[in-house]
Amino acid sequence: MKQSQLFTKTQKKAPRDEESINAILLQRGGFIYKEMAGVYSFLPLGLRVLNKVADIIRDEMNKIEGQEVALSVLQPKGLWQKTGRWNEGIGKDVMYKCEGGEVGLGPTHEEMLTDIVKHHIQTEKDLPVAIYQIQAKFRKESRAKSGLLRGREFPMKDLYSFHVSDKDFKEYYKRVKQAYLKVFERCGLEAIVTEASGGEFSKEYSHEFQVLSEAGEDLITFCQKCHFSQNKEITDSKAGDKCPKCSSVLRQEKSIEVGNIFTLGTKYSQALGAFFTSRDGKKKPVVMGCYGLGLSRLIGTIVEVFHDKDGIIWPSETAPFQAHLIALPSADGKTAKQILTMSEKIYKDLSSQGIEVLFDERENKSAGEKFADADLIGCPYRLVISEKTLEKNSLELKKRNEQKLKLIEIAQLPALLGL
Amino acid sequence: MKQSQLFTKTQKKAPRDEESINAILLQRGGFIYKEMAGVYSFLPLGLRVLNKVADIIRDEMNKIEGQEVALSVLQPKGLWQKTGRWNEGIGKDVMYKCEGGEVGLGPTHEEMLTDIVKHHIQTEKDLPVAIYQIQAKFRKESRAKSGLLRGREFPMKDLYSFHVSDKDFKEYYKRVKQAYLKVFERCGLEAIVTEASGGEFSKEYSHEFQVLSEAGEDLITFCQKCHFSQNKEITDSKAGDKCPKCSSVLRQEKSIEVGNIFTLGTKYSQALGAFFTSRDGKKKPVVMGCYGLGLSRLIGTIVEVFHDKDGIIWPSETAPFQAHLIALPSADGKTAKQILTMSEKIYKDLSSQGIEVLFDERENKSAGEKFADADLIGCPYRLVISEKTLEKNSLELKKRNEQKLKLIEIAQLPALLGL
Repeated sequence: MKQSQLFTKTQKKAPRDEESINAILLQRGGFIYKEMAGVYSFLPLGLRVLNKVADIIRDEMNKIEGQEVALSVLQPKGLWQKTGRWNEGIGKDVMYKCEGGEVGLGPTHEEMLTDIVKHHIQTEKDLPVAIYQIQAKFRKESRAKSGLLRGREFPMKDLYSFHVSDKDFKEYYKRVKQAYLKVFERCGLEAIVTEASGGEFSKEYSHEFQVLSEAGEDLITFCQKCHFSQNKEITDSKAGDKCPKCSSVLRQEKSIEVGNIFTLGTKYSQALGAFFTSRDGKKKPVVMGCYGLGLSRLIGTIVEVFHDKDGIIWPSETAPFQAHLIALPSADGKTAKQILTMSEKIYKDLSSQGIEVLFDERENKSAGEKFADADLIGCPYRLVISEKTLEKNSLELKKRNEQKLKLIEIAQLPALLGL
Repeated sequence: MKQSQLFTKTQKKAPRDEESINAILLQRGGFIYKEMAGVYSFLPLGLRVLNKVADIIRDEMNKIEGQEVALSVLQPKGLWQKTGRWNEGIGKDVMYKCEGGEVGLGPTHEEMLTDIVKHHIQTEKDLPVAIYQIQAKFRKESRAKSGLLRGREFPMKDLYSFHVSDKDFKEYYKRVKQAYLKVFERCGLEAIVTEASGGEFSKEYSHEFQVLSEAGEDLITFCQKCHFSQNKEITDSKAGDKCPKCSSVLRQEKSIEVGNIFTLGTKYSQALGAFFTSRDGKKKPVVMGCYGLGLSRLIGTIVEVFHDKDGIIWPSETAPFQAHLIALPSADGKTAKQILTMSEKIYKDLSSQGIEVLFDERENKSAGEKFADADLIGCPYRLVISEKTLEKNSLELKKRNEQKLKLIEIAQLPALLGL
């Protein structure tokens, strides 16, 4: 994409009403726009990142036989009454309601999806089934000061699985855990699998994925040696204590919960009547699991973990563009034109090879302004076309997370950019 | 995809509470699920169609320099107060509100997007700009009995354009009109461009795209010869009258409005302060246009236009799968196994060549049940593997909208399916 055609402009100053690094950098870069506390719109650069993250998640969910759907935001009161959640817990405190309190906006979709599945399964043969969606969730958050880390409206992936038995659920649960780790790995993040409160269910099948960060609202105790980890909410252990599993010294740090997976048992299937007929002819309630992953929180976490004083440093697979191609200005009009022509050619070459390039061909910007924008936006590679390029048929390449410049021949570019 | 793994099942009977053909067929086929009047969730088959339609629209919007964003559903009251629409018109009658009436759910996004653009444009050089999104809209519809044709929550593409002058807007308007016609053409639909009420603006730049259908709620007068057409709302002309342009005989028929495009002038830019500095140093309000297209209504229209008594007949580019591959049962167990093995091989071959195939490998279904499902789901091609296939290395191919069967050699398949 040509940068002059991108309607968003970068901002030098941080927005007045933001405290968190992710909100500041993402707004300064033109990725998002704040509509109100906890509510952000995604602008072209931000939507590109969101789509990248969604593609990673979709890919990993499809690998574990997830079937994608898109459920409505508007939620029927009747279903929530059947599970007793309309006037209690999440339905009472967290769910937005409209139409005189008669219609809810989905904070989660157990009720609706269990109702749908109920109408499509009959016998043991129809199970297991895993269904997910990537869709906006709405939650009344009293604290919404952490930018994308805690939203009132935010895109979320929610996967639900339906099984004939606890045994089958547990096997699938392990596969989801691995799929989640793969998602975070592809997003460049190291996630710690943390034991969490199982609520009314066994905590053996309730885990959070935590990423260490000063911006986090969670506190986890963890062992670096054997990977034992617990949310502070469920443990009295503290930093310096001995790991109950391997006796190493425990650490305690702030972290961001980027995902959670847990058992639902038969709570929803019983309340909503999702039964199947087993091989021995008995009617049994479906055993369920639930697996959440907030996309905007994930993006916010990436920014919290990967940035420096100049801007964002996107991990490769989540970057809005792989390369930021910069045509430098020149005092000499003729040279400036030659630089632009050569840049245009390289832009077209790379694009035609499938490399996503943001091409800064703006003529009224100084080298300094262009570099500052590139640092802020944070594409993995910066390619600079200058007078030197004209002379030597080579360009300056810099990785966003490295200091050193590399002079490379243009023909080497595709290989260097991973093609 | 293997049909046994698809969690949805087809239904022989129409749902009790639906009158419209699109809602009945789409629910029977397992494409959608009704949550409440005017609110449908998209199940795997329906989501595939929705994504196909979204891809077509996205492609055509990108071709006319549309930049994609994803704005929030939650709308700040303050912006709507500035345009006077919070307590009037669409804001009063159509917008859902929650939080004691202090937060709205977007029925349209002029206010929010004008506010965003205002913060990113300064001079004439920053314009024109065209921005679109494909996102859920929410509207309190009193009549919501037409399935996907009139929803309370529905996916919509809304494009807004921002210009320095009326002249520039008008040129872009013409390009959008052509892009819309291209979208409908790719969806297999013949859309009639109809003059509509321009509201407070000139009706010269206010058009609807109408598709003739008995299910339509609109009534249009049109000339088949010179393409003159008017919505009944703005004309007294009737069937049999002379066309005011070419004197042919006018027809009048029911139709579905599948899209609309119109001018916004400077109403929103003035109210919200979206000004730019022109070359002569003057501050001027941005001139705007607005272009809507409901995706679910488009899908509903396709079903209304393309179906027969047995089910849906998807136009190629909108079909959930290009081909429905059916492994027929056999009374002889050994033969049945050979049929399955051969089908599996063809399924893998076609899939690896990028052809999207729904593979009916269910072992407990009769030929009749399988054919009925294929007719209902409505993929363009049906491929049948039977005992005959084993003998002759050829299979039966039937186009969904044709009666005749064709016996073709397996090697010919990719070419026939358009590769």
